[in-house]
Amino acid sequence: MGATGAVGSVMLRVLSHRADIWGEIRLVASSRSVGRTLTVCGEDVVVQELSDDVFDGVDVALFDVPEDVAATWAPVAVARGAVVVDNSSAFRADPEVPLVAPEVNPAQVRNRPRGIIANPNCATLAMIDALGALHSGWELTELVVATYQAASAVGQAGIERLHDELEAVAGQRALGQQASDLRAALSDRLDDDSPFVAPLALNVVPWVGWPVEEGWTSEEMCVRHEARRILGLPELKVSATCVRVPVVTGHSMAVHATFARPIKVEAARQALVEAPSVVVLDEPDQREFPTPADIVGSDPTFVGRMRQAIDFPNTIEMFICSDNLRKGAALNTVQVAELVARDLAQVR
Amino acid sequence: MGATGAVGSVMLRVLSHRADIWGEIRLVASSRSVGRTLTVCGEDVVVQELSDDVFDGVDVALFDVPEDVAATWAPVAVARGAVVVDNSSAFRADPEVPLVAPEVNPAQVRNRPRGIIANPNCATLAMIDALGALHSGWELTELVVATYQAASAVGQAGIERLHDELEAVAGQRALGQQASDLRAALSDRLDDDSPFVAPLALNVVPWVGWPVEEGWTSEEMCVRHEARRILGLPELKVSATCVRVPVVTGHSMAVHATFARPIKVEAARQALVEAPSVVVLDEPDQREFPTPADIVGSDPTFVGRMRQAIDFPNTIEMFICSDNLRKGAALNTVQVAELVARDLAQVR
Repeated sequence: MGATGAVGSVMLRVLSHRADIWGEIRLVASSRSVGRTLTVCGEDVVVQELSDDVFDGVDVALFDVPEDVAATWAPVAVARGAVVVDNSSAFRADPEVPLVAPEVNPAQVRNRPRGIIANPNCATLAMIDALGALHSGWELTELVVATYQAASAVGQAGIERLHDELEAVAGQRALGQQASDLRAALSDRLDDDSPFVAPLALNVVPWVGWPVEEGWTSEEMCVRHEARRILGLPELKVSATCVRVPVVTGHSMAVHATFARPIKVEAARQALVEAPSVVVLDEPDQREFPTPADIVGSDPTFVGRMRQAIDFPNTIEMFICSDNLRKGAALNTVQVAELVARDLAQVR
Repeated sequence: MGATGAVGSVMLRVLSHRADIWGEIRLVASSRSVGRTLTVCGEDVVVQELSDDVFDGVDVALFDVPEDVAATWAPVAVARGAVVVDNSSAFRADPEVPLVAPEVNPAQVRNRPRGIIANPNCATLAMIDALGALHSGWELTELVVATYQAASAVGQAGIERLHDELEAVAGQRALGQQASDLRAALSDRLDDDSPFVAPLALNVVPWVGWPVEEGWTSEEMCVRHEARRILGLPELKVSATCVRVPVVTGHSMAVHATFARPIKVEAARQALVEAPSVVVLDEPDQREFPTPADIVGSDPTFVGRMRQAIDFPNTIEMFICSDNLRKGAALNTVQVAELVARDLAQVR
């Protein structure tokens, strides 16, 4: 579901590069994409229109559609016999819908009374594998996070808008000197119809999601709620500040993580080196650290800039980068779907 | 000193817009700018070459030059009778050189046994007025900071490189999909001679300054050291992660600040509204918050996204933006120079 979107396109690539445990793969998208032929797992597949019947005989349905579409259609798919893995926020807060990061809480895929499993938010997923690996050794107690989130997390419209803005400002070397410059340059050349609440080219925007309570955004509360649920730590202390940056794809996070037990940076680094889905890029003398430009298009969680906090006991500082379309969306959805498929195969 | 650089140019504008308490203003720059005529305080002034004699009769010398030039020439200027206000890092760690933010520790301008006063680092200055205002009410104990630092902090070369990179990537809509994309696009069109250690357009780079100890950068240690000194809090707990972002001018910081006394976000907001050099932009329901694009070219420290930390006692989260060429460099230098001039006038 949503096969032609920014995440859907990556999902087809991810499916095509992993072991093909699937029989038939059906592709569904909105009406304007119906009839297009896309390639997945080496097969040409025609995009179908969304209807009740499309879910008949489906074991696992991967959803990447807007929240309202997911809320309406996930129960339909379940009624037709599918297990739904949904990448929208529609079910993430539902206590009867597990939130699964396969490297951290894979067993939760079986705990799905509604037949729906939610894919966590991309900001949570960017760091959860690294945090999970450290938590299992030292017991995480506190998390202070500031994010650097990419445009593609709002879909193809976000990617296009960032490129539109870049083209509008490129070559204007006087820009960035005065407050009205950038907004004027953009409004001269582009319409106001942006998925972002402020200019994104040559800017950073401390607002991701919608307002929830007491000045917090949905994204910030989501990171807190989801880190707690996935790690199974209902008392975990979390403060997040979520910021959009002019990067196409690749979320980054500055993470200040405090643990119950004494932790040394060398041991923490070793634990991450040994975590299957984490790659450590951390040679400061060689200027080796993760950046979105260097990790985009790849699956792991990349960690660098690991430092022992000087003034805070049992605390590690680190900078984490992860592809928000892969681990943050398509890859995790596919990984969860694979766990479900194995689970179904065992039951039968 | 350094009248034609990125900071020097702003310094001339700042001097021209403030009360003109100066008699003669001399402009000094490197040899390639000697003989150029610049306007300051309504007067046309010819740029002079650096020499011992240029400091004769000078009361206050404002330096914005590389560290090694400052280290060599500040003592020369002092020997000729000037008080030096230096914006390089040459003297910032010297216990006999005060580090002054005029809204926080103005009296320290008199404590200058070497005749030199250091302008704090631009990342420290971006947040220090806001922190100072909150500290005076609630006593700051802990600070966890992640930065979003602009290209112009490394001077004109940083501004030009960011624009060069923007031009090289604009219109290439496939960029940002794969890890090699961006580096390839840049190396096709630009030489490798960047002041940044990684691509900056469409990227964020978690590295500012040079390596110091245990994985920390000079910039991160500087923020810790300077916040402690300026606030007079040698035991303040500080962890900073400094990140360069593709913004021309305007530093931003995600700040997690903990205090000794119970603090409520409404009272903290009111204290910042009343701080003379701070502007609060914080109406989340109206999507009002500071961004670099909206505050560049102006003097105050802008604070928004103020939130009561849910899980951390006595802790406020906020997002701070400030013009790194103004408050972070030229403005603060001029403000310190004005304090020195008033001090000298009283002594005479």
